[in-house]
Amino acid sequence: MIGKLSGEDRDRELADLPEWTVIAEPEGIRRRFVFADFNAAFGFMTRVALLAEQANHHPEWFNVYNRVDITLTTHDAGGLSRRDIDMAKAIDALLA
Amino acid sequence: MIGKLSGEDRDRELADLPEWTVIAEPEGIRRRFVFADFNAAFGFMTRVALLAEQANHHPEWFNVYNRVDITLTTHDAGGLSRRDIDMAKAIDALLA
Repeated sequence: MIGKLSGEDRDRELADLPEWTVIAEPEGIRRRFVFADFNAAFGFMTRVALLAEQANHHPEWFNVYNRVDITLTTHDAGGLSRRDIDMAKAIDALLA
Repeated sequence: MIGKLSGEDRDRELADLPEWTVIAEPEGIRRRFVFADFNAAFGFMTRVALLAEQANHHPEWFNVYNRVDITLTTHDAGGLSRRDIDMAKAIDALLA
C-alpha cells in the first residue's frame, strides 16, 4: 500500500508542481485548465483518462464547457502520495 | 434565444425523466450514473460528449472512478429549457 507524503518529501515534490494548489477536502492537489472550447477540453480529458487507466490512478474531475478542474488524491493513503505527484507531472507534460 | 420552461410544460417534460432530480443551483436537473469501473464510466462520458457537441449543448459534470454526476442547465435561459430535456432524453437513451 502506498504511503502519504509528508514533511520534506512532500515539500520537494510540490515545488515541482507550481500550477497545482494544495487543498484540504479531499486532501490533495487541484489544478484548473481552460481551453478554447469543449472540443479541446474533452480532448484533453480523453488523454488524461488514458494516462489514468495506464497508471490505475484516477482523478476526481469536473468539466463545464472549456474548463476542467482536476483533483488528485490517494484514498488508500488518506492524502497526497507519490502516485498523485506522478500523475500531476504526466498531466502537465501533456500541455508542455 | 431559447426560453426557460415553466408551469405545465415543465411538469410534463419532467414526468418523462423520472431518474433526474430537479436542483436549484444551478437551476436545472441532475442524474448520477454508476458503472462497473472507470473504463465504463469514461466510455459513457465520451458518448455523452459526442451528443453534446452535436447539440452544441454541454453538461456540467463530475466524475470519480465509476461515478458520473451530470447536471443540465441552460445558462442563456437562466434555468431549465427544452434543450436540457432533449439532452437528458438522449443521455437516457444511451443506457436503454
